[in-house]
Amino acid sequence: MVQLIKIDANDNVAILTEAATKGTMFPEGVILKEDIPQAHKVALADLKKGQAVLRYGVVLGYLLKDVPKGGWINETSLALPDQPGLDAMEFGHPCPDFLPDPPLETFEGYDNGPDSYAGTRNLFAITTTVQCVSPVVDQLVTQIRKSLLPNYPNVEDVVALNHAYGCGVAINAPDAQIPIRSIKNLMRNPNFGGQIMVVGLGCEKLTVDKLLESEEINKDNVVILQDYPGYGAMMQALLSMAETKLKVLNERKRTTLPLSKLCIGMQCGGSDAFSGITANPSAGFASDLLVKAGSTVMFSEVTEVRDGVHLLALRCVDKEARDKLAKEIGWYDDYLAKGMVDRSANPTPGNKKGGLSNIVEKAMGSIAKSGHSPIVEVIGPGELPTKHGLIFAATPASDIVCGPSQLASGIALQVFMTGRGTPYGLSEAPVIKVCSRNDLKQHWDDLIDLNAGGIATGEETVEQVGLRLFNLIIDVASGRKKTFAEQYGLHNFLCVFNPAPIT
Amino acid sequence: MVQLIKIDANDNVAILTEAATKGTMFPEGVILKEDIPQAHKVALADLKKGQAVLRYGVVLGYLLKDVPKGGWINETSLALPDQPGLDAMEFGHPCPDFLPDPPLETFEGYDNGPDSYAGTRNLFAITTTVQCVSPVVDQLVTQIRKSLLPNYPNVEDVVALNHAYGCGVAINAPDAQIPIRSIKNLMRNPNFGGQIMVVGLGCEKLTVDKLLESEEINKDNVVILQDYPGYGAMMQALLSMAETKLKVLNERKRTTLPLSKLCIGMQCGGSDAFSGITANPSAGFASDLLVKAGSTVMFSEVTEVRDGVHLLALRCVDKEARDKLAKEIGWYDDYLAKGMVDRSANPTPGNKKGGLSNIVEKAMGSIAKSGHSPIVEVIGPGELPTKHGLIFAATPASDIVCGPSQLASGIALQVFMTGRGTPYGLSEAPVIKVCSRNDLKQHWDDLIDLNAGGIATGEETVEQVGLRLFNLIIDVASGRKKTFAEQYGLHNFLCVFNPAPIT
Ligand SMILES: [Ca+2]
Ligand SMILES: [Ca+2]
Ligand SMILES: [Ca+2]
Ligand SMILES: [Ca+2]
Ligand SMILES: [Ca+2]
Repeated sequence: MVQLIKIDANDNVAILTEAATKGTMFPEGVILKEDIPQAHKVALADLKKGQAVLRYGVVLGYLLKDVPKGGWINETSLALPDQPGLDAMEFGHPCPDFLPDPPLETFEGYDNGPDSYAGTRNLFAITTTVQCVSPVVDQLVTQIRKSLLPNYPNVEDVVALNHAYGCGVAINAPDAQIPIRSIKNLMRNPNFGGQIMVVGLGCEKLTVDKLLESEEINKDNVVILQDYPGYGAMMQALLSMAETKLKVLNERKRTTLPLSKLCIGMQCGGSDAFSGITANPSAGFASDLLVKAGSTVMFSEVTEVRDGVHLLALRCVDKEARDKLAKEIGWYDDYLAKGMVDRSANPTPGNKKGGLSNIVEKAMGSIAKSGHSPIVEVIGPGELPTKHGLIFAATPASDIVCGPSQLASGIALQVFMTGRGTPYGLSEAPVIKVCSRNDLKQHWDDLIDLNAGGIATGEETVEQVGLRLFNLIIDVASGRKKTFAEQYGLHNFLCVFNPAPIT
Repeated sequence: MVQLIKIDANDNVAILTEAATKGTMFPEGVILKEDIPQAHKVALADLKKGQAVLRYGVVLGYLLKDVPKGGWINETSLALPDQPGLDAMEFGHPCPDFLPDPPLETFEGYDNGPDSYAGTRNLFAITTTVQCVSPVVDQLVTQIRKSLLPNYPNVEDVVALNHAYGCGVAINAPDAQIPIRSIKNLMRNPNFGGQIMVVGLGCEKLTVDKLLESEEINKDNVVILQDYPGYGAMMQALLSMAETKLKVLNERKRTTLPLSKLCIGMQCGGSDAFSGITANPSAGFASDLLVKAGSTVMFSEVTEVRDGVHLLALRCVDKEARDKLAKEIGWYDDYLAKGMVDRSANPTPGNKKGGLSNIVEKAMGSIAKSGHSPIVEVIGPGELPTKHGLIFAATPASDIVCGPSQLASGIALQVFMTGRGTPYGLSEAPVIKVCSRNDLKQHWDDLIDLNAGGIATGEETVEQVGLRLFNLIIDVASGRKKTFAEQYGLHNFLCVFNPAPIT
C-alpha cells in the first residue's frame, strides 16, 4: 500500500512509496491534488511562493509558485539556494556515540605485508603509460588468458590498465598531477599483489619515471615497445615478462586478516529519491560497522556533497582535514566555472524522473552513504590516504570516473548504490550493487546484488539492511561470493580523471 | 653515408640523415663541432645569440646562445617566437597549378547511395549513449562474434562504439556540443552502411533524442537497458536486434565507384625531424592526387598547425573557410589557456629526441601532409563536411582523439605518418601507417605499412613515395589489402573529445 515517507520532523514534504492518483488519502491527513509518480515529493501543508521546501531537515530550495497541501513538488517547482561557503567552516564536532559494534572483525584476504591493505582478489595487472600501447596490450591479455592463465590457477584474472591518458595531453599543466598520480597509484592497488609490469611506447609524455621509483625501472618491470624489433618480438617479450609475474602471483593465498587490512569505496549512481532513505543510509550503517572494526572506507562525489559541505566539515576530526576539504571542493568549483557550469549540472534526467528535484536533494541522499563516523582525512582524486577510518576522496560523481579514482586511492572493493539501475562494474575490484527500491530488484534480479528497498516499505530497517550489506562485503572481500558483474564479466573502461587540456 | 638535408634556400640549419660524431666533414664545408644525433639540426654558419634559426624558410625560434658553424641546435637552444595572430588573415591565394593528375579515378567500395561517401569496410557498429552500458555491449559483441557473425560472411566485423561520454558530464556546458555531435555523427560513418543500433541505459544525460532523428527512435533501432527485466532479457533483445541489422548489412557488396565517393583522413603521431621531409610530404602528394580525383581528404591537429595558421589561411578558398579557421583555432587557444598552457605543450619527449626542437618546427612538418591543394572548408571537431576536396578538421593533435574526431566527420580510412613508431589502429576504419625513416621500417617491419624513409637517403622522391601511398590507399580502401593493424586486430579506444567538465 502506498505510503508517505517523511524524514525529519521539520520537513514540509514527504515522498510517495508508490505512484498514486489524484484523490488518494493518507493517514497524515493529506489528499493528493494530482497524479504523482513514485518517489516524488508531496506538500504536507499549503506552501507559498518563495517558501523554503524542507527535506532531511534541510532547505532543498525555494518555491517558484504556491503549492497546496497534497500538491506535487518536482524539479520545476524550486529555485536553488546559494551553495554553502567554504571559508572558516566549523569542524571537529563530536560524532554520535551510538556507533554500532561490528559482528566480526576479520576477513579472508590476500596479505600485502605490514602497512599495506590486503587484496580481495588476486589479479595480474598490466599498466600502460599511454593509450598508444593499448591495442598491443589488449592482444597480450587475450594471449595470456588463452595460453598462460590456465597454468596459474591461483591468479583470478589478468587486467589491462588501459586509459586515455599519457600523450597528446598538456603534461605540465597544473591539473596534470591528477591523472599522473592516479595512474601511478593505480598499479599499486592491493588487488595486484605488488607485482609491477609497465608497458610504454617510448616517445610518450607520461614517461616511466613519472610512474615508477628509480629502483623499479628495469628490464624486470618495464617493456618499451619501440625498443623491440616489431610486433612478434614485442609480444614475445611481453608474454615472457607476464609469465614471470604470474609465477609470483600464483603463490598468493588467502589468510585470515583483521578488518583493518580492508579498504573499500562507496559510491552511488542513477540515484532516485529512495536512494537517500534506503540504499545510501544502509551503506552508511555498513560503513560505520567497518570503520569501527578498523577498516578504511572512502566516499566521494564532490558535486553531490557540495551542498552539504558544511555538514562534512563538522565531522572532520581536525583542521587539516577541514582545510583539505575546503581546498578540494574549491578546486572543483573553479573547474566547473571554467567550463561555464556549476554543481547544478550534476542531476540527470533519470534522477529527476526518480523524484530528485535538484542537487541539494541529491546531495542529502548521497551523503547518507558516509554514515556517522568522523572523517579522519580528505584526499584529492587519485591520492593515497595516510590514515585508517572514514575518508572523503574528492572525486567526480561520474560513476565511471569515481571508480578508477577510488581504485587509485587503494580500494579493494566498491559498493555501488543505485535507484534507476546500471550494469556498472570494474575489472580491478569487485563491485557490489545495492538497489534502493523493491521494483528494481524484481526487475533486475540477475544484476542487483542486494536490495535495500524493503526499508521504504517497512519490511526491514536501515540497520538490518546495513548488517546484511556488511556481511555481503565480507563474503565478497573474502572470495566466498562473486558479484553479478564479476560473474558476467561486466567491466567499465578505466576513465582516469584528466581535468587538464588535450593537445 | 650520413648527409645534411637543407629544405629551403634561406635555411641556416640542416638535419643529419644519420647520427654523426664530432669532426665529421660534409661537402657543404661544415665540420661537426660535437656528436649530434640522427635528424637533429646542425648550424650551417656561425650563428649569434638572438639570431633567427630558419628551417622550411620559416623562423623556428631565436637562439638563446651563440652556436658555431657545425654546432648542434636542439630544444634547449631556442626561444619560441610569438604565435601568428588570427585577425584578418589573408586568404584565397591561388594554389600551384602543378598539382598532379591521379593515375586512376575509381575504387571498389560499399556504396551508401547518392550524396553519401562510400564505405571501405562493411562493419556492424553498435552505438552506446553512455559508458554505463559498455560492459553489456562488450559481452554482446563477444556473443555476436561467436554465434552470429559466422552466418553473415559479408559483414567484416562488429564494432562497439564505446566511449567515456554520456553521463556524469556537464551536458549543458557550451563545449558539450563537441562530444554530442561527435557521437551523433560517428554512428553514420560510411563504413557502417546506414544501419543504426543504439544501446542506452535509460537515466543518462546523453538521451537518445540528442543522437537520433525522431523518426529513427523506435524499437527497431534503440534498446534501453532499464526497460528490460534483467541481464538475460536485455542480452536476448540485443542479440535479436543485432541479427536483424546483420541481415541487411550482409547484402552489401563492393562495386566500382568514382573516387569522389572516398573520404579519408590524414594525421601524424610520434613525429621526428624526418616526418616533415619524407612521410608527411608524400602523404601531401597522395592527398593532392586524391583531391584532384574528387575525393575528400581531411587533415587536422590544431596545435600542430597553430604556428602555420597564416599559411593555411592563404590556401582557404573563401572568407567563410578563413573565418571558420580563425574561429576554431581561437577556440583552441582559449581552451589551452583555461588549462594554463599554450601550444608549446604539444611536443613530446619523443619529438624532441627525434630532433624536433619546438612546436614551430613540428608544425611546418605537420602541415606538409596537406599537400598543396586549396582548402575548401574548415570544420570543428566531429562536424560533418559539406564540400568535397581538402578539408581542415580542427581536432586535437592527440592521435587517439584525432582518430575518433575524423571518424565522426566521415572518414572511411586514415593514413597515419610516424617517425618514432606506434601500433595505433582504429576498429572503425583501416589505418595505413607510413614511417619517416628507413630504420623504423627495418625495426618494425611487421607494423609499418609503407616506408617513406628512402626520400631522406635519396633512394626515392616525394612523388614516387606519394604515388605508392596513393596506390596503397586505393588497395586498402578497395579491400584488396589489409593493414597490419587490421591483421593483428590492433584498435585504440574511442577517445571522444570532451573539453567540457566532468560532474
Ligand atoms: Ca552519486
Ligand atoms: Ca556516482
Ligand atoms: Ca554505470
Ligand atoms: Ca601530429
Ligand atoms: Ca596526431
